Parts: sequence; structure tokens; C-alpha cells
Amino acid sequence: MLNLTSLNEQSLLPGTKGLALTAPLLQKDLGAQAWNVLNADTSFPVAVLKGSALQHNLQWMKAFCASRNIVLAPHGKTTMSPQLFDMQLRNGAWGMTLANVNQMRVAQRFGVKRVIIANQLVSKSDIHSALSLLAEDPEFIFYAICDSVVGVNMLADAVREAGLQRPLPLLVELGFAGGRTGCRSRQEALELARHIHRSPYLQLAGVEGYEGLLVGKNREQDLMQVKSFLQDMLALSQQADREQLFDLPEILISAGGSAYFDLVGEEFASKMKLSLPLLPILRSGCYVTHDHGFYHGLVEEMHGRVADLPAGGLRPALEVWSMVQSRPENDLAILTMGKRDASYDIDMPLPFATHRPGHASAPFALPAACKIEKMNDQHAYLRLPKDSGLCQTLAVGDLIACGISHPCTTFDKWPLMLVVDDTYRVQSAINTIF
Amino acid sequence: MLNLTSLNEQSLLPGTKGLALTAPLLQKDLGAQAWNVLNADTSFPVAVLKGSALQHNLQWMKAFCASRNIVLAPHGKTTMSPQLFDMQLRNGAWGMTLANVNQMRVAQRFGVKRVIIANQLVSKSDIHSALSLLAEDPEFIFYAICDSVVGVNMLADAVREAGLQRPLPLLVELGFAGGRTGCRSRQEALELARHIHRSPYLQLAGVEGYEGLLVGKNREQDLMQVKSFLQDMLALSQQADREQLFDLPEILISAGGSAYFDLVGEEFASKMKLSLPLLPILRSGCYVTHDHGFYHGLVEEMHGRVADLPAGGLRPALEVWSMVQSRPENDLAILTMGKRDASYDIDMPLPFATHRPGHASAPFALPAACKIEKMNDQHAYLRLPKDSGLCQTLAVGDLIACGISHPCTTFDKWPLMLVVDDTYRVQSAINTIF
Repeated sequence: MLNLTSLNEQSLLPGTKGLALTAPLLQKDLGAQAWNVLNADTSFPVAVLKGSALQHNLQWMKAFCASRNIVLAPHGKTTMSPQLFDMQLRNGAWGMTLANVNQMRVAQRFGVKRVIIANQLVSKSDIHSALSLLAEDPEFIFYAICDSVVGVNMLADAVREAGLQRPLPLLVELGFAGGRTGCRSRQEALELARHIHRSPYLQLAGVEGYEGLLVGKNREQDLMQVKSFLQDMLALSQQADREQLFDLPEILISAGGSAYFDLVGEEFASKMKLSLPLLPILRSGCYVTHDHGFYHGLVEEMHGRVADLPAGGLRPALEVWSMVQSRPENDLAILTMGKRDASYDIDMPLPFATHRPGHASAPFALPAACKIEKMNDQHAYLRLPKDSGLCQTLAVGDLIACGISHPCTTFDKWPLMLVVDDTYRVQSAINTIF
Repeated sequence: MLNLTSLNEQSLLPGTKGLALTAPLLQKDLGAQAWNVLNADTSFPVAVLKGSALQHNLQWMKAFCASRNIVLAPHGKTTMSPQLFDMQLRNGAWGMTLANVNQMRVAQRFGVKRVIIANQLVSKSDIHSALSLLAEDPEFIFYAICDSVVGVNMLADAVREAGLQRPLPLLVELGFAGGRTGCRSRQEALELARHIHRSPYLQLAGVEGYEGLLVGKNREQDLMQVKSFLQDMLALSQQADREQLFDLPEILISAGGSAYFDLVGEEFASKMKLSLPLLPILRSGCYVTHDHGFYHGLVEEMHGRVADLPAGGLRPALEVWSMVQSRPENDLAILTMGKRDASYDIDMPLPFATHRPGHASAPFALPAACKIEKMNDQHAYLRLPKDSGLCQTLAVGDLIACGISHPCTTFDKWPLMLVVDDTYRVQSAINTIF
């Protein structure tokens, strides 16, 4: 669906993270090298995506959305990978969500045609760049989000100055006290909706919110707040509809990170009476690779509260493999991986397996008591349980596999990630463009 | 000195972080656009380097090294920027330090000829890639670090198998209990030195250590530990010299992050008797941009304990500018900047100035009580002092300038950073290759 030729045909240079190249290699020829991570054919650290888990997750989310009658505009900022965008769109995504104009520009370059920008556009130069895309590419459309009159006026002025032939569709953002962006009350949001509706340069397309920040210590309370927030969004849509403020043939309503998308599906299935069809749009981004930590825990909880999720659950697809570089103390291994290679913003990387290249055919599971204690820029400190045989056996040159917690902050550390099969044979690669 | 043509001639595409391009632009034409950050001509966030501060820091460190009679092999992992490597080498750097083989490959591609790899090489594929460089480029040399017989044997085997005509020079790493890599005792390090000296495929070139991790809560104690560690390195060199284990015409001794380089200069100026000349090599990386937080504090302390540092101190060169995207609550501004854009591993970004494009000609200083409270992937939460006029005046679309704490983890978030003059006019750009 997207045009990935420029990536497939590009020449990867020696020095590319994750590869141990001695000469340039066309990206499309990666699979033909028959490299295997377990044979240590790559460089270390290396970030790998398990192809089977990716495919499973794509189909799982497609099935989930179909069962809830919602569409998906996955947040592309998670991966910023044209190949993954392509897989998401081929699996039925309605469009892509992106965080800012430059991310949208990258997506559009590869052929994405429908985008939600999940943030209010406020920089004149960025707005100019965004609107010029609408002039250049008549098939391209984006929906921008706003939470203030100042922001809306900037957009209206820019559309007028650009002489655009089509009004710009906007989503009003509802927020909540103590949250991030978004109008702090329905009343404020409604006034903004009226303001948009009045402008000849703008169209009110719908309502947007982000409930994913409501992850506190008391999950029952979080869930209640999420539901109440989603209901507020519906009520706002109803009020704006009563005043006939929506300017398109359907009303967009969009929410959903990767933590509570079950509730988004549930609440937006409401049989509320509106004069126009309601199009609920989920924006989850992390589902595509899932993780071993933060989202793993949240989606496990979801399985606990929802009986009819698609089978198999989401599977962690992203792993970072590194090598034991030093064994300076009995229960300490220093790994060739650091803050430049794996997320550390929610949890340290989660070591789960070890392998000695050229020895056993499959990796051994590590005991749960093995922990990454800290990381420097280029090193990780793996603490071994004092009583474990690992203190004797783990050696310089052994491989360590880590899961990560929160995929977004690992993707931005890897311009190239290797797609592997279940035996860790390298099949292909994906690129990220940050 | 380095060949930067490929970077200058490259075409920057719309979507490039920090720029608001609507068409491709040759990198060398950036300066001719007459863009100014204060006019909001760029995209936001944007990372800028103040050219004057860069030049000052380069000359400051050159003067420091000259005054201490030490040479500099700045750690390139900080910036991974060929343009900054070039400036460092033009300012007299002896060579570059790099963290791993892929980083070394990048540096060599642009013409760097002498490298210290500050880590033990343990992956067969990476070692193969490193040695093949020696075969390809007869002017190229690298010094590798080792702390174990296993590691040394891997290198000896690889040199033999590669049929290299020149032995590989190694530095023995001394560490300390509770530290990172490195032999935990002088005795262990000495045995490793003997082992290297015996191999026909290897040369013992010197001794290496890294004192920069000794940043605890009691600075007096830190300083004593650093001195004692540096003295241990000297004693190790003396012991190895007595046994005539060094295989080159001079003995390399290398230490030095960016926290205690005064002590490295002081201790390595020792008049210890050796049979060969001693070449002290400092490896500081962060000095080139310095910062507003962590290193700022450490270098301030240095000025307190050393009278004869070069004039003017190091100056913070790296700033991240973002825009107020939302003002959802009286004392809260949400900025268009997040974990993808600025370091957060030691401190949150440090807001220091604000500017309204098109208004005052120079930015206003922000009160110290303005703090970035937290960041998400793409957002920062700026908390304003409740009693300040800012709560009334700070508006959507205003610019916020942040200093950062720990430059390394900001560099890896920006493929391109803009070099600006003191009025924030864009002069040129540097690239990073991670």
C-alpha cells in the first residue's frame, strides 16, 4: 500500500547499528545473508522484531476493532516506521495518527493519505508546512486537534492566507483537570466547537481525548475515571450535535492509548441518539510490538476484566540482544547495551534469556531474579542472583536477551531493526525515521 | 581535516526534525535561508548549538591540555557528529575515543585515523569488522581496551585468523570494586598485561581507566577515590614497565571523563621514573557542548578547587527550544517537546528563557522556579510559579528555551542540530550518526 522502494533499495553502510558490515549492503539483500542472531552474526547490541508476534498483534487488533465496530488510526509516533505503517494500513487501519507536522510529512512521503495530528498546531512554520501538503496532494487529508481559541485562530488565519480551497477539519480536544492538553470542561470545549463551526476556513469534524495518562496506583479508580471521561466525550458530541455544529457527514470521536482500549470500545458503542453517524477511532500505537513490561501488565489486566477479547492476547515482539562484555565481579555482568539502545523511562530492560553462540541450539531462560540494575550511555549492569549457577557459568561473549518496557523510547534509538523468525534468523529489516 | 562533503551535499527532506521544510534543501544552503529561531522560522522543538560557545569550549580544552601536557582523544560517543569530530581534531585532538566498532566505522568513514575503543571487543562479527578496517586502511589505527583473558584471547585469535600484518595494540583496563568494567586489582591487570605482551598478535600499548563514575554524595570522598584510582593506574604502568611489558615506544595512560579532568591532568603529570615516555590521554567528551546541569555543576566545583584553569570556563552550547502548545491550567504550560527531544536521565530539561516571536528582540529570562515537571514522549509539563506574572502572560505560541543536563542523551535524539549565532540566526547544521 505504501511505497517502500526507497528503503528497500537503500545501501546500508558499515557502522549501521545492529549490523557488523564491512561493506555496503542493499537493505533488500539482508534476508539473503542467512544471518542468525543466535550465531552472533549481527553486531551487539541489536534490536529485533519477531515477525510472527508482529503479524499476530496486527491481526489481533484488527479482530478487536471489528468486534467493537470501531476503526483504528494507530499512533505512528510509537515506531515512526514506514514498514510498520504499511503493515498497519494493510491490516485495515483507517489512517495513521502522528504527533506533529514533521512526523506527518514522513508518513505522507511514503504514501499515507489520512492522518490525525494528535496535538494542537501552534508554530507558524509548521502550520505552513502542514497546509502546503494539502495543496500539493489532493488525496491527502489531516485532522488537527485543538484546545484553545488562540490555536484555532492561528489555523483559520493560516488557511485563509494559504488560499486553500478546502476548509481544515478539526477535532476539539477534551481534557481533564491535572491532565495534559485539552479543554478542562465540556462547556469550554463546546464554546471552542462553536468557534470552529463559525469559521469559513475550518470544519468541526469531531471530538478527541486521551485517557491513557490515567494510570495511577488504584486501578479501580483509574477505570472509573476513564469511563467517566469517555462518557464526557460522548456527552460533548451530543451537545455539539444538538447545536448542529458538526460540519462533516459523520462525527469523529477518538480516544485510546494502548492501556484501556477495551473501555474505549465499550463506551463508544453507546446507542446515544445523534443526527449523524458516529465514527469511533482508536489511536493505540504500542499494540503493534507490545512489550514485556508496562503494556504487558496493563493488557493482562484487560484480559482479567474483558471476557470476549480476541484469542491469544498481544505478544511482545521487540527484544534487544546484547553481549556480556565484562564479568568484573562474581555476580555482575556488564553488557554491551545502554541508554542509547533500550528504554529506561518506565522500567530498566527485562533480561529473559541467555545464549552462548555456537553452543545450545535454543536460548536458556534466565531466572527472574536476574535484573538490569542500571544503565550508562553504552553499558548495562546485569546483577546475577548470588546463589545461582550463572555466577559460575555466565561468560564474556555470552548473549543476553532483554524485553523492554514502553516500546516508544526504544524505537527512537534504532534507525534499523531486524525482523527475525522464531529461530532468530534475520528475514528483513524495518527503518525508523525520527 | 575530515571529509564532510557527503553531509554538506546531502538533501534534507521535509519531515527533518527541527526544520519546517516544504521541499528538499541542500544542507549547505541552510545558512543562506536567513532563518532565525526567535522568529519561529524553524520547526519546534529544535535543538541548537551556539557556535560561539562551541568555539570557546574547543579552545578552552585545548589550552587546558596544553597547560597539563596531556593530549586529548575526546569521546565521540557523546555527539557522534562528524562535524564536531572535525572541529575537535582541528583543535589539536590526538585522536577520537569511541564506544564500539560501529561508532568507529562511522568516524573512519569521514577520515578519523586514530581511535581508542573504550570497551572490550567481544563479538566475533564486530571484531572482524574492526580488523578489516586495519587491512583496508593502512593509515588507520585503533587501540582496544581489555579486562579479561577471554577477551584478549578472542582478539589474538581474530588477528591470527585475519592474517593481519600488524599486531593489535591494547590497553589494559583497571577498574575498581563496585565500578563498571576493568580488572578489580593491579595484580589481575598486571597478569593480563603479561598475557598480552606474550602474544605475537598483540601489543601492550598502555593502561586505561575511567574515574568518571565516582560521582557520589560526598565530593571530598569522591575526589580522594579518584586520586587514589589514578595513582593506581600509574603504579600499574610502573610495574608493567619494570617488567618491560610495553611493546611501543611510548606508554599510553588514559583516563578522564568530563567531571574530574583536572585531577587526571594533575596526577598524570607525576614525575614517576619510567623507561619510556608516558603519554597521558584525556577522553572527555561532554566538554564540547558542556551543559546547563550535571556537568555545569561538576565543572563549577572544579573552578573552586583549581586556580589555574583557562579563562572563561566552559559554556553550555546546547539548547532545546520548544513552543507552548497548550495552556490548560493557570500555572501549567504544555510544550511541544518530550522524551524524544531532550535528556531526562539525570535531570529534566532546565527552562531558562522565553520569547514571543515577532515581539521583543531578545528572550526574557525565566524565573528559576519555572520547572519542567515531567515529560511524555512528545510533551513537557512546564509548571509556572503560582504568584508569577507568567501565569497571566505566557501564551500558546510562545517559545521556551531549555538547557539540558547530560548532553549525550540529547544528541542521540537529533539527526540534525542547528548551529546558531548569538542572535539565534541559523548558520549551519551538524549531523549525528547513531
